[in-house]
Amino acid sequence: MPVVVPGAAMALEIHPAIRFIFCGDRKRIEPAFQAHPRLAAASAVEHTETFISMDDKPSQAVRRGKGTSMWHALDRVKAGAAHAAVSAGNTGALMAMSKLVLRPMADIERPAIAAFWPTIKRECIVLDVGANIGASARQLTEFALMGAAMARAHFKIERPRVGLLNVGVEEIKGADEVKQAHAWLKKPELGLPFDYHGYVEGDQIGQGVVDVVVVEGFAGNIALKTAEGTARQIGVYLREAMTQSIITKMGALLAKRGFLTLKHKMDPRRVNGGVFLGLDGIAIKSHGGTDAFGFASAINVGYEMAAGDLKGRIASDLGAFHGKFADMPED
Amino acid sequence: MPVVVPGAAMALEIHPAIRFIFCGDRKRIEPAFQAHPRLAAASAVEHTETFISMDDKPSQAVRRGKGTSMWHALDRVKAGAAHAAVSAGNTGALMAMSKLVLRPMADIERPAIAAFWPTIKRECIVLDVGANIGASARQLTEFALMGAAMARAHFKIERPRVGLLNVGVEEIKGADEVKQAHAWLKKPELGLPFDYHGYVEGDQIGQGVVDVVVVEGFAGNIALKTAEGTARQIGVYLREAMTQSIITKMGALLAKRGFLTLKHKMDPRRVNGGVFLGLDGIAIKSHGGTDAFGFASAINVGYEMAAGDLKGRIASDLGAFHGKFADMPED
Repeated sequence: MPVVVPGAAMALEIHPAIRFIFCGDRKRIEPAFQAHPRLAAASAVEHTETFISMDDKPSQAVRRGKGTSMWHALDRVKAGAAHAAVSAGNTGALMAMSKLVLRPMADIERPAIAAFWPTIKRECIVLDVGANIGASARQLTEFALMGAAMARAHFKIERPRVGLLNVGVEEIKGADEVKQAHAWLKKPELGLPFDYHGYVEGDQIGQGVVDVVVVEGFAGNIALKTAEGTARQIGVYLREAMTQSIITKMGALLAKRGFLTLKHKMDPRRVNGGVFLGLDGIAIKSHGGTDAFGFASAINVGYEMAAGDLKGRIASDLGAFHGKFADMPED
Repeated sequence: MPVVVPGAAMALEIHPAIRFIFCGDRKRIEPAFQAHPRLAAASAVEHTETFISMDDKPSQAVRRGKGTSMWHALDRVKAGAAHAAVSAGNTGALMAMSKLVLRPMADIERPAIAAFWPTIKRECIVLDVGANIGASARQLTEFALMGAAMARAHFKIERPRVGLLNVGVEEIKGADEVKQAHAWLKKPELGLPFDYHGYVEGDQIGQGVVDVVVVEGFAGNIALKTAEGTARQIGVYLREAMTQSIITKMGALLAKRGFLTLKHKMDPRRVNGGVFLGLDGIAIKSHGGTDAFGFASAINVGYEMAAGDLKGRIASDLGAFHGKFADMPED
């Protein structure tokens, strides 16, 4: 990954206190330091012989994991030598290996992957975006707690607003787990450490109605990919529309600063960094195709989560919740 | 609905052979004909005293349905007096009442709602977008058949390309029904009357990779709303970006034709008209908030589906499929 070292150098500019352990092939990492002497001074390299490829299936990755760069990075977190692991590798493998190396937290039924999502206000957090297919009412409630803890670390607000993603049609059959989670999240006696907004629909995510959107991973992953695809699609329309004649081309040239603003707002690199929640350690997934700037964003997310004590906060919130949850009947 | 009569007048311009039966309050409908003498000559009015409101729950709507304009319109289809019913009313009520009045087709486990989705090529068809939550492998396979029949009527092509919406991560737990449907759809011995493309992800819908995208209704509804919300969100960004200075405003003015092209491409009225599939009759749901042009689009969809013999085509395709399906083991 030629973006990792320059990305780390950019992240170091923003947070000079970060120290890096690069896990991977020493022969490929060290030459890249030449252009970044300050990073070199803030970094250690721990050599690994093998790595997980993008084509490895999670089960294969786990079997032959030990000794790979991915395993080693997670192991550094497990051992307490690092506060967070950041990887641009294979998502499924990273999740499977994170579960194995870092282990799920004691009270957590299932870990989740949380993504940042740009909105017309500020970004929001959406989870689960693909760690699991389906989620029980209890799991959705846990997602709400974990997402709120992440929002606290990221937005630095005490009581994030949390919404439950649902379809608009009332009285529709199914989605019983969503209704049950809704019933629980509404209960004041649970004393949840966030403001529960109620249901939100797909078109409200980008409106910034809430700070945290909770959904099971199949629909969450599809929603995330669909939003990315729609943004790209409109980009294609816009380019076609602005190049349709000499006049529109001139107008677009004149409005160039406006288009740069738009490009910046829609820049997926700004929200790069999926957070694995519910593990006994912080692991961050960067998009595989990103550049140094995008990878720096993912490192910053890892820094924020460590500095905001994401793990401790989730542990204490979940502890309090499960104490009350034990007495809570289903509606 | 003040858009219904002008919308019908616009649809009549496109398809002069259409004949209309307006079901509703005669006192409100007939005065609207004054501006549309050709429509008046092509129309009958059948008076109903009551109507379903947007706030009625589907169960209430069904209980007090008889005598409402919605019921009457569906009953005209049932009786063979009309080829299609088009309504801008309450979606849940329309679905529940359509099932009751038109009845599901013999071989269909569950009806679905199909929506048109704009892509960078032409529009595609996505189903289910909210008739049901969840779907078995067999139901997903039926959705594929019904969506392909609709694509044939709409695109006038013999073998539509059909994709199954899934998340990218391999070997993920769950979604067994999606995997089973995939295994069936791939089998050449089923002799399915369309080209099965395989899995598609959320970002591929807008790329126009396939003509028909199959998904269960929870994720399908969320995907549809998310795409609508993302388009609106980018519209907000674009307006802000183009009004940020005098220069960008001048540029935007010069490029006005380009922005009109973009607006046209993104116009949700062009793809208005959700089709209820799997019922023994054609029912079309128009967006409630659309205008006359949007309502005309929904009527055109109804016309196309009737002219393309949607019902007969689904019946024969499903008949052939279920004959073979009976011998098909699960993988």
